[in-house]
Amino acid sequence: MSLDGASSSYVDVPLRWADMDAFGHVNNVAFVRLLEQARVQAFLEWFPGQGLPRRDGVVVARQEVEYLAPLTYRPQPVRVWMWVCRIFGSGVDLGCQLGDPTADHSRPYLRAETSLVAFDLQESVPRRLSDQERDVFTGLMGPPVPFRRPARQAGS
Amino acid sequence: MSLDGASSSYVDVPLRWADMDAFGHVNNVAFVRLLEQARVQAFLEWFPGQGLPRRDGVVVARQEVEYLAPLTYRPQPVRVWMWVCRIFGSGVDLGCQLGDPTADHSRPYLRAETSLVAFDLQESVPRRLSDQERDVFTGLMGPPVPFRRPARQAGS
Amino acid sequence: MSLDGASSSYVDVPLRWADMDAFGHVNNVAFVRLLEQARVQAFLEWFPGQGLPRRDGVVVARQEVEYLAPLTYRPQPVRVWMWVCRIFGSGVDLGCQLGDPTADHSRPYLRAETSLVAFDLQESVPRRLSDQERDVFTGLMGPPVPFRRPARQAGS
Amino acid sequence: MSLDGASSSYVDVPLRWADMDAFGHVNNVAFVRLLEQARVQAFLEWFPGQGLPRRDGVVVARQEVEYLAPLTYRPQPVRVWMWVCRIFGSGVDLGCQLGDPTADHSRPYLRAETSLVAFDLQESVPRRLSDQERDVFTGLMGPPVPFRRPARQAGS
Repeated sequence: MSLDGASSSYVDVPLRWADMDAFGHVNNVAFVRLLEQARVQAFLEWFPGQGLPRRDGVVVARQEVEYLAPLTYRPQPVRVWMWVCRIFGSGVDLGCQLGDPTADHSRPYLRAETSLVAFDLQESVPRRLSDQERDVFTGLMGPPVPFRRPARQAGS
Repeated sequence: MSLDGASSSYVDVPLRWADMDAFGHVNNVAFVRLLEQARVQAFLEWFPGQGLPRRDGVVVARQEVEYLAPLTYRPQPVRVWMWVCRIFGSGVDLGCQLGDPTADHSRPYLRAETSLVAFDLQESVPRRLSDQERDVFTGLMGPPVPFRRPARQAGS
Repeated sequence: MSLDGASSSYVDVPLRWADMDAFGHVNNVAFVRLLEQARVQAFLEWFPGQGLPRRDGVVVARQEVEYLAPLTYRPQPVRVWMWVCRIFGSGVDLGCQLGDPTADHSRPYLRAETSLVAFDLQESVPRRLSDQERDVFTGLMGPPVPFRRPARQAGS
Repeated sequence: MSLDGASSSYVDVPLRWADMDAFGHVNNVAFVRLLEQARVQAFLEWFPGQGLPRRDGVVVARQEVEYLAPLTYRPQPVRVWMWVCRIFGSGVDLGCQLGDPTADHSRPYLRAETSLVAFDLQESVPRRLSDQERDVFTGLMGPPVPFRRPARQAGS
């Protein structure tokens, strides 16, 4: 997979020592927390001047994460590449790779696909993507997430 | 889907107020934390007398989570049903549903499939499932996770 | 110290495996999280029918924690004893001991004193304790926290 | 209080969106997590080339935190000033202030005093400070933490 066309859509997220669990590795749940933080930072870049998505927010409807390599705490942040795999009426599928900032993105610690649904957080109902959101996400279109594992069988 | 044949394989996990995020709902990452805690409690039941999986442990290689309904903190624990969808040489795919203990399991807050790989935590290498592990997991065989969303397209 | 007169004011809080850090012990920050959860559960008992303190809430203004013994994850919950050390115009000092439910409270894992300030969370300003709050807290009066370490020097 | 003589002993710690709780503010426990992370980063600076304190580590024996002002998530990190208030046979009392990097340190969000005890993590016993540790900590000596609240009464 080449992410080179979309290579600017990344953010660096510093680890915390507490991301490690009793096995001495960054915990699988802590990795999901890093993905959340990466999305928060990316949205601040993608939608400048709007503050944090508060009222017209997005919620996570689905997430698939493939863990590829162990990681221990170090001062250097991780780099999270994000791109859009699919746009649908009320949301997007976001592709993610989490790796090292000094390396290229070809040897990530994890890959993920996160389905975000646009949500009216005041009314607690899904909403359609705004035109502006659709434009931003269209500019971030990239390939499917190159998961190592094949997809679930049809019917499962 | 019927989980009735496997209905004994559940554990109750209490929420914490801190599982909620700034939106006032149990956070999507906190849900993944609840799944981890449910596995810890289940393994203590499934492999009694072995203490926590320490040396001959398992690690999460992949996880797919579908979020179905919002949840806010309440004193009542959530119930997490777990069963085995697939056994392979060095691990299992675990099916999970997280719902209310007082209701049946047909209206969960989330569904998940978690691929666990048996791991020699001392040597940091995958290992084959032991005969005992294989026997226990075979006794927990159940249906595929009834995800609402279709599987990824082949090739993605 | 005797807590026998106040012995009913405790709650049991289950640990989570993730409360342990890379050293394999319940982390000092996780202990503070357990104290928070204990207060949430206690307030639901002390102020029944009011739901969680939302609008007329309390915030932590100060907390002093003394760590006395290490703890590792186990299925058995910890028991947190709580009592009131002092009532002032807009809040209380809460004494806490965290130990085992099967033992008496004389060998805790930690002791703490938590100063809570009544807060109008809508207006973001401190408020006076209500008469009902004052009555409840008065019924929970107990001794000072028997910290092992002497108090800070005057002037420090 | 003047921290100007010790002003170089600070680290910047980025917030995470998840540090906020259901009230929409950085949670009091999350603040304690930030102090932990600040100590980890500071120790890497103070004891270069030693990696993370692993075998010859330190544990938190006591911590007193005074919360002074609310904080919400923002991309800008917080700055944590740290200095040594007292050196004793097997540890130190660390003074902390957590504030904004762009402001001076006179209007912190919180102040804390953290008692660290040198610990042989392999043998699980306290140990004496090494000469090198004593030298480093001596170079970081500063004033007592200027807590707003007076110390506990003698005898309490």
